[in-house]
Order: sequence, then C-alpha cells, then structure tokens
Amino acid sequence: MRGEILEMAKRSRQAAHLMARANGALKREALERMALEIEKEGEAIRLANERDLESAAAKGLSGAKVDRLRLSSRVLGEMTAGLREVAMLPDPVGEITRMWTRPNGLRVGRMRIPLGVVGIIFESRPNVTVDAAALCIKAGNAVVLRGGSEAFHSNQCLAGILQRSLKESGLPETAVEMVGTTDRDAVLDLLKLEEYIDVMIPRGGEDLIRFVTEHARMPVLKHYKGVCHVYVDSDADLGMAERICLNAKVQRPGVCNAMETLLVHAGVAERFLPAMAEAFRKEGVELRGCERTRIIVPDAIPATEEDWRAEYLDLILAVRIVDDMEEAIRHISTYGSQHTEAIVTGSFEKAHRFTREVQSSLVLVNASTRFNDGYQLGLGAEIGISTSRIHAFGPMGVEELTTTKFIAFGNGQLRN
Amino acid sequence: MRGEILEMAKRSRQAAHLMARANGALKREALERMALEIEKEGEAIRLANERDLESAAAKGLSGAKVDRLRLSSRVLGEMTAGLREVAMLPDPVGEITRMWTRPNGLRVGRMRIPLGVVGIIFESRPNVTVDAAALCIKAGNAVVLRGGSEAFHSNQCLAGILQRSLKESGLPETAVEMVGTTDRDAVLDLLKLEEYIDVMIPRGGEDLIRFVTEHARMPVLKHYKGVCHVYVDSDADLGMAERICLNAKVQRPGVCNAMETLLVHAGVAERFLPAMAEAFRKEGVELRGCERTRIIVPDAIPATEEDWRAEYLDLILAVRIVDDMEEAIRHISTYGSQHTEAIVTGSFEKAHRFTREVQSSLVLVNASTRFNDGYQLGLGAEIGISTSRIHAFGPMGVEELTTTKFIAFGNGQLRN
Repeated sequence: MRGEILEMAKRSRQAAHLMARANGALKREALERMALEIEKEGEAIRLANERDLESAAAKGLSGAKVDRLRLSSRVLGEMTAGLREVAMLPDPVGEITRMWTRPNGLRVGRMRIPLGVVGIIFESRPNVTVDAAALCIKAGNAVVLRGGSEAFHSNQCLAGILQRSLKESGLPETAVEMVGTTDRDAVLDLLKLEEYIDVMIPRGGEDLIRFVTEHARMPVLKHYKGVCHVYVDSDADLGMAERICLNAKVQRPGVCNAMETLLVHAGVAERFLPAMAEAFRKEGVELRGCERTRIIVPDAIPATEEDWRAEYLDLILAVRIVDDMEEAIRHISTYGSQHTEAIVTGSFEKAHRFTREVQSSLVLVNASTRFNDGYQLGLGAEIGISTSRIHAFGPMGVEELTTTKFIAFGNGQLRN
Repeated sequence: MRGEILEMAKRSRQAAHLMARANGALKREALERMALEIEKEGEAIRLANERDLESAAAKGLSGAKVDRLRLSSRVLGEMTAGLREVAMLPDPVGEITRMWTRPNGLRVGRMRIPLGVVGIIFESRPNVTVDAAALCIKAGNAVVLRGGSEAFHSNQCLAGILQRSLKESGLPETAVEMVGTTDRDAVLDLLKLEEYIDVMIPRGGEDLIRFVTEHARMPVLKHYKGVCHVYVDSDADLGMAERICLNAKVQRPGVCNAMETLLVHAGVAERFLPAMAEAFRKEGVELRGCERTRIIVPDAIPATEEDWRAEYLDLILAVRIVDDMEEAIRHISTYGSQHTEAIVTGSFEKAHRFTREVQSSLVLVNASTRFNDGYQLGLGAEIGISTSRIHAFGPMGVEELTTTKFIAFGNGQLRN
C-alpha cells in the first residue's frame, strides 16, 4: 500500500463528514460554479486534452479510442449543461422517506443520508470525472476518482477545477480526489481501503469490472452487459411492434440498452417477420435466426447458442420464434443479463404477467428498451446502470448514491 | 472448488427463480407448516441437539458456548412463534413503491422483487437456521446456510424439516440449502460463487465477519460492533436521562445496542452524575471516567483512549464530560461504530440537529438505545443489523431482503 493512496482516502473520509452536513444551497452553488469555471478554463482544458490526444496518437491508439478521449466543445457543453441540471435537482439528503408510530408511542422514521465516500474507477472518457463527481456531491458524498492513464492530463485538469470550485463555495476541496498516478497497482491499493471507501463503481469494459469485483473489499455497484430482449406477443399491435423493435435495435446500436435478441410469438411470426426483416434490411441490420425464423426469413444467418448470449453492440440481431410467452420468459431468464426487456402486447393479462415475472432491472410494456437510462426514466441523471440487485438495480441516480438511517423520537421510552 | 458446493449453489439459483414467482399465500402456508412440523418433530430435534451438546462438552467448550447451542423448549417456542409472526407479515414482493409519468406519457414505477439467493454464514446458535430461512423465504428468496460445526446435527435436522415443509406446500425444497460439511474450506468456496449467490450475510464474531468481507466476491451485509452512546444534554430532563441511561446499560448489557459510553454536558454533570453513578453502582456497573468525571465521581477508574473505542458487552461504562453537543457529536464520529446513538434533551433545536448530523444507523431522541432492533422498530423481525451503508443501514427486515426493479408502461414510446 502506497502511503499517498491511504492519505488520500483518509482525506476523503474527513471530507465526507463535512459534506454530509452541507446544506443544499451550498452544494447547488458549488455545482453551478463548476460549470462556470469549466467555461472559463476552456483553453487550459483544451491544452491538457491536447497532450493526452498527442500521446494517444503516438501510442497508435485506434481512431475510436482517440475519439473517446477528445473534450470537444460539444462534450464540454454537455458537461456544463449536466452540472447545471444536477445542481437544480432537489437535495435528497435529510428527506424523511417514511414515519410511523409504535404501540409504546415511539415515532420511528427513515431519513435519507449520503453513502459517505464513493470510489469511481473508469476508463477513457475524461468527462466521467465531471459527471460522476457532480452526482456524488449532490448526494452529499466525497468521491475518489481513478481515471484511465490515456486521459491523465485531462482528468487532472478537470479535477483541479472541481476542487477549486468546491473551495470557493465553502465546501471541502478534498470532497473530490483524483488518484495522481497511472500506476495500475494504485487500483489494487484503492480496492483494499474498505475502511475509508464505502462503495466502488467501476465504469468501463468487462475486464475492468471483473477485476474490480474480484479484488474489492467494499461493495461494488456494476453492470456487466446488456443482452436486451423485445418479445412480440400474439396480441401485439404489429405496427407498434415494428416501430419499437426498429427503435430498440438501430437508434443507437452500440449501447447497453439496445435490443440484441427479438423473440416473436409463433402465432404472428408469419405476418410480422417479413415486413420487420425488410425494415431491418434497409437499416443494414444483419439477422441471425432460429430454424423457424429462417423458414420465414430465408436470408437470415443460422443462429447458434452463442448468438442467444451475445451483446453485439452492433447492427446484428438474433431472432427466435417462441410458442408462447412462457417460452419467451424462459429464454430471457436463461440467456438474458437482467438488464432490459420489453413486451409488445395488447393483452392486459400478459402485460401484467410479463411485468411481474421478468426479473430484469427495467421491464417495459409497449415501449423501446432504449428508455433504460436515468435521464429518460426521470431520475435526472445517472452514474451507471446496475445489473446486480444489492443496493441499486437499474439506473443509479442521485438517490442511489444515498442510504437511509433510522430515527426515533420518544418521551422516555425504555425497553422491557 | 468442490463440486457439491457448486451444485448446491446452482440448485439455489433455480429455486430462486421459482420462489420469485410464488404467491404470498403459498409462502405463508409454508412458513406456518414449518412451525407445525418443528412442534411435531420436537423429539428428533432434541436428539440431534443432544449429539451436538455431548460433543461440545467432550471438546471442553465453555458453559456459555454450550448454552448457545442448546435448543431448549423455550428456544423452540420462540422459533415457532417467530415463524408464525413472519408468516403473517404482508408479502413485500410485487409492491409498487412509486409510480410517475414522463412527459412522453411513459408511466414509470418501481416494483419490489426478491434479491435472489441469500447466503448466511453463522456460528453457534442453531435457531439462526430457522429464523434466517423464514425471513428469506417470506421475501421470495432462496437461502444457502452454513452453520457452525458445533451445531452440525441440530442444523441438519432443522434444515431437513424446513425443506420437507416447503415441498409439502408446493414450493421448491431447494429454496433452503444447508452446507453438509463442517470443512472450513467450504466457506471459501461459497464466497467465490458470486454468479449464484447474490449477497452474503455473516452472523457471528468479528473474526468471522472480517474473514467473509475479505474473501467474498458478492456484496456482504454486516455489522462489526456496537459502540453506542447516550448524550445527556444541558436541556435534558435529568430524571428521564437517568432512566434511559440505566435501561441502555443494564437491561441487557451483552448485546450490540447496549450503551457503552455516556457523554454528559458539562453544565449538568454536577447535578446529574452523582445520582446516576449511585444508580449504576447499585446495578454493579463499573465506571471508567475522564478526568472531569473523576472529580465528580471519585471512585470511577481513569478512562484511557481504548475505553472510548471499547465494546464492553458487559457491566462496564465509559463516561466523558463534554462542553457542548458539538463536542459530543465529534466524540461519536471519532470513536463510534455508526450503530446507535441517543440524545436526551428538551431542546427542539438540539434534538433536530443531533438527529440530522449524527450518522448512525439509528439516532434516537429521548429513548433507550436498546430499541435498535427490527422487532422493536416495527419491521416485524430482523436478520441482523447492518452498520455499513450499502443496501441496508440498521436493522434488516423482510424488505431489506428485497430490491426494486423499474417497470414502464407505454403505448408505443420510442427514443429520439
């Protein structure tokens, strides 16, 4: 354990004590100041980012990877807009979520409080520094960030701006800490500090997430992958089904809430699939079908067992015909990743059962899987989507960065 | 990894799928049947328990340890009463906790669902087998239990009864699995199965809890210790303060929610402490005081730095005089364990600030710390008290053994 990592974590714990007491107006002011400072410091950010982009190019990183590093004026604009939106969200801290009275007169309730210190380990995109820190601060937490080595200078520059803004608003600058080394062992050190860091949120590829899960001593909030399904039921409005499937697959195929497998009730497959396949063809989607699908859509590639488990993140779609909803639910529970599933149906009974029985983080009726996103669902913003069930399941907004304590008001109650 | 542990975990995952869909009436029936079967099988339980008690005596275990193993008729009675109480709790599964409408007309809500598979690793008391399994089943989970080797026969017997009751009620008997080996490596194997076990709850001494935390790949819900404080404010009703302090310390000193440190405002110390000390003396409580305390209570033993951190679980109490509430809160945040703290005060302002600023799992005003218990606070029952903030903070009842998924009802909504 290097001393600097331990010292940083201790500073974060101290900052968390102060942040937990900070009132909502102060936090809002700090977030608005951050947006302003980022706008003022545009040139410094551009220069720091330029250094990262140059060394990325020198290392021969792919175009897509370099692109993710770039803090364009569009990305900076989204960052400051995001800060201002989070600033305007209601302060979750101190909310009494419930209150009841015990037979002995003791009034018992639950009050929302911050988690404490949140660790974020992320890969290339430097804008995560700002987006993640903003949500953590809004919820009254301190945050320890560890970004990818390729974005080192950009991350340091942004973290510096956030820290100055905190200080100028009268909040502890140490509420944002950025690990100042690109050394991979620093991650291992962080993961051992369960005494100082309350929860770890890895954001990046599956390798990073598995590494963090295996080594972290504190709880980890994570999502591995999104193998999302749309089930088109025999009672579906087929026009609506086609629009939903098209949106779920092609509106942005490279993200976790895009549809990867289409399940179609055998009773409507012959009416539904030809036009659907044609619409997909026009959008350049490659279809991989089960045997029954290939009878109706002959140019579909034969699907293998791997296709049912695949997160393509691309214009590829697996298609399977099922005999009934029961079989669709079984397929989803066997091959799915508990991320997002939708049913298209006009049947109240089936909508009800699908909603009740499918155990994914978002279950939709007659809407696109693409809505699994904190902003779209009305949480204001999100720090990621959890596909594990502890603490948070689905998009994690400001509220998921808090917990509740119990409070009790008495007038001398004793235990017998 | 031994194959039997892996196979057991896989069976639990399968059972969890079925349990998640089980309706409330079925679960209630199974729990009531368990109570009945335990009553019927009293003799078999007594014989199994006798074997454990004999080998414990042969190994030379202390009287207290042997006592914890014993399934007396009183313990069995509490067990069956507990099962019937849990049976009567409302079914948490399927509850819609909130619902709202997005500008595009999508109705979004959160629905309560089970966690999945809950792992419980516990030490001597065999009644944990029944108490823990009951709560897990009520919440629609499957449970994998691993009890202490000293209670091996008792645990096997009780688990067998639970499994038969499940089966006879039409639920999967594999919803309760008891690790059939006392081999310590079996624990290590279990802790690696994050794919099949969603959360691990260790119940026992600090060594066990630290071992589980260090090796578990799944999240761990735990509580290390309870260093609980009562702060007697300058605005306190001193008679009420004395009754609360006495109850918090002596009503049951060996448990985690008993008071370990008393903090007294300097302004009332001279009026409060002499009579309080006298009351403690009568109950055989040893006092360890700060220097200022010892001026007022000369026979108090001088307290050292270790006393402020001590969880005595005994008739010993650390006493410190503080200049104001600010100092009391600082003492609690420095030395406390975030378990339970109480203030005795007549001041609205101070009650309000103490409640808001003390970050423990239960913060009380004018009531005994001994109320930090799921049953006392109105949760119906509890599976333990969490002092970490992820997922659950404080007593964990049936609701804390669930999570929520998002649901969304649309009429063809697409993402732009």
